[in-house]
Amino acid sequence: MAEDNVVYVGTKPTMNYVLAVTTQFTNNPKEVVIKARGRAISRAVDVAEIVRRRFNTDAKVKDIKISTEDLKTEEGGTIKVSSIEITLEK
Amino acid sequence: MAEDNVVYVGTKPTMNYVLAVTTQFTNNPKEVVIKARGRAISRAVDVAEIVRRRFNTDAKVKDIKISTEDLKTEEGGTIKVSSIEITLEK
Repeated sequence: MAEDNVVYVGTKPTMNYVLAVTTQFTNNPKEVVIKARGRAISRAVDVAEIVRRRFNTDAKVKDIKISTEDLKTEEGGTIKVSSIEITLEK
Repeated sequence: MAEDNVVYVGTKPTMNYVLAVTTQFTNNPKEVVIKARGRAISRAVDVAEIVRRRFNTDAKVKDIKISTEDLKTEEGGTIKVSSIEITLEK
């Protein structure tokens, strides 16, 4: 199960994730972590910016971490993919 | 003119920007700022990770900032676009 205060950003429309983050803030007002990998990283930044500027204007960016994860391929090899974690706090 | 220690990441291949950052570190060993907007944000994170892990392994992420910029459209309106600034330091 996903952790309660984490929103994983993937390939759905940006506003789906914005809604997920604002919903999390309703339940757990302290902080929400937005995570994404690869090309979804740009969308994760959009989500954080839209939440912060339009929906939870009292939220601010507490921390941003970037890292590299090893993903297993179907052929049994691994590929490296960048990831981001953006922590918003109220 | 671009500032000396800034690399703007756009739509070229990732390794072009990795080379630009490592070249900057040769000239100005203290820190290099990687900037990108919109969909190039994911590539900027890849650039920072590849530099840090493979080419300048003594470099570390000093700071990451995200923000929203207003871009003028040809029709005279403005659109909002997310941006990132990743500061690597040795």
